[in-house]
Amino acid sequence: MPLDDLQARLRTGLPDDALITDTDVMASYAHDMASFCAAGTPAAVVLPRTVEQVQHVMRTATELRVPVVPQGARTGLSGAANATDGCIVVSLTKMDRILDISPVDRIAVVEPGVINAVLSRAVAEQGLYYPPDPSSWEMCTIGGNIGTASGGLCCVKYGVTAEYVLGLDVVLADGRLLRTGRRTAKGVAGYDLTRLFVGSEGSLGIVVQAVLALKPTPPVQLALAAEFPSASAACEAVCAIMERGYAPSLLELMDRTTLRAVNAMAHMGLPETTEALLLAAFDTPDPAADLAALGAVCTEFGATEVVPADDAAESELLLKARRLSLTALEAVKTATMIDDVCVPRSQLAAMIDGTAAIAEKYDLVIGVCAHAGDGNTHPVVCFDAADPDESRRARESFDEIMALGLELGGTITGEHGVGILKKDWLARELGPVGMELQRSVKAAFDPLGLLNPGKLF
Amino acid sequence: MPLDDLQARLRTGLPDDALITDTDVMASYAHDMASFCAAGTPAAVVLPRTVEQVQHVMRTATELRVPVVPQGARTGLSGAANATDGCIVVSLTKMDRILDISPVDRIAVVEPGVINAVLSRAVAEQGLYYPPDPSSWEMCTIGGNIGTASGGLCCVKYGVTAEYVLGLDVVLADGRLLRTGRRTAKGVAGYDLTRLFVGSEGSLGIVVQAVLALKPTPPVQLALAAEFPSASAACEAVCAIMERGYAPSLLELMDRTTLRAVNAMAHMGLPETTEALLLAAFDTPDPAADLAALGAVCTEFGATEVVPADDAAESELLLKARRLSLTALEAVKTATMIDDVCVPRSQLAAMIDGTAAIAEKYDLVIGVCAHAGDGNTHPVVCFDAADPDESRRARESFDEIMALGLELGGTITGEHGVGILKKDWLARELGPVGMELQRSVKAAFDPLGLLNPGKLF
Repeated sequence: MPLDDLQARLRTGLPDDALITDTDVMASYAHDMASFCAAGTPAAVVLPRTVEQVQHVMRTATELRVPVVPQGARTGLSGAANATDGCIVVSLTKMDRILDISPVDRIAVVEPGVINAVLSRAVAEQGLYYPPDPSSWEMCTIGGNIGTASGGLCCVKYGVTAEYVLGLDVVLADGRLLRTGRRTAKGVAGYDLTRLFVGSEGSLGIVVQAVLALKPTPPVQLALAAEFPSASAACEAVCAIMERGYAPSLLELMDRTTLRAVNAMAHMGLPETTEALLLAAFDTPDPAADLAALGAVCTEFGATEVVPADDAAESELLLKARRLSLTALEAVKTATMIDDVCVPRSQLAAMIDGTAAIAEKYDLVIGVCAHAGDGNTHPVVCFDAADPDESRRARESFDEIMALGLELGGTITGEHGVGILKKDWLARELGPVGMELQRSVKAAFDPLGLLNPGKLF
Repeated sequence: MPLDDLQARLRTGLPDDALITDTDVMASYAHDMASFCAAGTPAAVVLPRTVEQVQHVMRTATELRVPVVPQGARTGLSGAANATDGCIVVSLTKMDRILDISPVDRIAVVEPGVINAVLSRAVAEQGLYYPPDPSSWEMCTIGGNIGTASGGLCCVKYGVTAEYVLGLDVVLADGRLLRTGRRTAKGVAGYDLTRLFVGSEGSLGIVVQAVLALKPTPPVQLALAAEFPSASAACEAVCAIMERGYAPSLLELMDRTTLRAVNAMAHMGLPETTEALLLAAFDTPDPAADLAALGAVCTEFGATEVVPADDAAESELLLKARRLSLTALEAVKTATMIDDVCVPRSQLAAMIDGTAAIAEKYDLVIGVCAHAGDGNTHPVVCFDAADPDESRRARESFDEIMALGLELGGTITGEHGVGILKKDWLARELGPVGMELQRSVKAAFDPLGLLNPGKLF
């Protein structure tokens, strides 16, 4: 299929400004934010504004057997949105309308290109709360969040994106429109196809509308920071906090490497003796009382300093160190790889100590931030991309971290997804029977294998 | 395949007491608690105690092309557990071990035959809470709860069974063992096959182990009853309660017909002028204060009487009317059909008023209890099974109630499932594209169509 023919066929069902064929502009749509993930050259980039336009693209793609790569804001960290050679990139960023917000039904109906922060602010105006808060929330889209089943800081109390997706409109590989799920609080009519699309990385269909569950706005959260003499002491405190039934709205851990990087960048005056920092918050009716109780648990498990915030502004200051973590670690070397291993929280200490041992073995700087309450660690491997040996060691350590996670009963990805980056590892986690069924499900939805080929498996 | 051959083949991999071939005993395994659902005659009933025994049954079934019907406690209300002629019934009730309870990881690992109440009590001893609480919780099994994606009274705050299933071990149609999901709080490795099994009514595989999420035990709930002069006033109060951000742990509605039936049976002294009763509860740190605020909303929307409980015992007394509803309605005539239509809660009043109109049209007694906070109504059609005309009218009214639910943007089943009872209606709700994909998913897991054939579609 000559390139001109494909572009001409696409043009028959699209307004001029919805089709990009300029090579340089197309190149800017070729990849997301993952390291070590190959990206091909698209044959066309489409920015549809309507469901019909998406259907036209998929009908054309099916007829001409052209692969299609759906994209949101390309803030993903696994290469799932990377172009493949000769593909049509479908960027959903222009389908960005909030169609409905219902405080009585506690739902929002949105197009996939709505930015997470835009939705969060819009529902907040009506006393509602859309919890999922990936770090990229000011840029990433709801469609991308659904495709990658993304998480965030609030998951320890509020769960992940999957738990907020009630219903979807999806354009299938052959261009037909599928409506799944519901607008209601409950519903069990047939297999839960809605959930199957969440985290499917655009490989089963293109989400063109979503019904999202909302919660009432909770009270403003109040935070606390606790300094620990070792990561394992901090992890023991985390386990005790969860075992004793506390429900913090945030429970984050930063290891020594991360703390030093942040300190070096922002001069936050953190003492050099601190080996781990635990950040916790409550959005309960009496957060100060809850924080005091949690702070006592931290002290019981060896915290040398416990600093509760007095108000929201102080809370934000305490959380600033956490928000700076990735930026600070990125400044250590020329490149980083962010891992995303989630273990049972009872194994959190073993995971963090094991990661430190891996850093030593490979002679690398690896800082760990963790959504500690979830057992979800983000080891950040820092390396010099111009140094082939260090790059090789970085890649090997990254893999060894996943192996450790599996060994501890965990998963290779808590919230970033598989994409290209972790394809080989998906098979190791799921095993042959699991992989066969994954492929069978893929074939049921996309028999020609046109949707985001080469991702996941 | 002669019957004796099948039984002999099954016997090769099963202990004697795991195989039932007595015709009368087998008949007692032929059906669940649904009305109007045909049940066939099983060729064998197997009560396995191990995963290997389930695998043996499925290998035998695949080799001999014999259908298999998995069962829990057969308390289901849609005929999903009914035998088909010549099938092997696999009752999982003997696989009833609780394998692990971890307060730190907040999970339980269980076999499918564990009874819901047994699990609830076992985790409560460790300060934990397994929320899903179908009315049959003292009898129904976790495997059955997973198969039907069952709900309960607590869903308005805690959600349904699906939200508590983290990982599954499943014996597939051909006898292979599939492990899905995780033991971790988060995880996005591949398509969410775990969720696909939840609510699949045993048609995709046989669940032999489940990892369940637990919550910390909440404070004991305190309840309130509010009497309303009309169902629509009560529904307006429900909408206002949810719109204003309250998070009751229970929010139930009983209509006039139900109230009179309960009054007649239990002499509870409810005034004849009460047209609807709203029951609400909070399990918050200060439930009395929350109840007072909620009671004020009820009064604002026309409640004639608001009765808050002072303690747990009084709360149970108030909830007794709700718990008696079905029994009381069953006493009205010789038979009942329980519908399960869930609508957006903003449509709850239209659903209840519409159901009353249907009762009048068909000259029937139809009482409505509703999980009002979820918009999930259970219209109970009372009829005399010996009267063919009344039975016909009952069946027609039952269908008309589902049609009304769909018209109001709802679903034909909020928590009871499709089974045999609502097969025709599933297609009406999902449409041709949806049905085609449902069938494709079924074929991907069970290409020979051996698992619970004739259910769902």
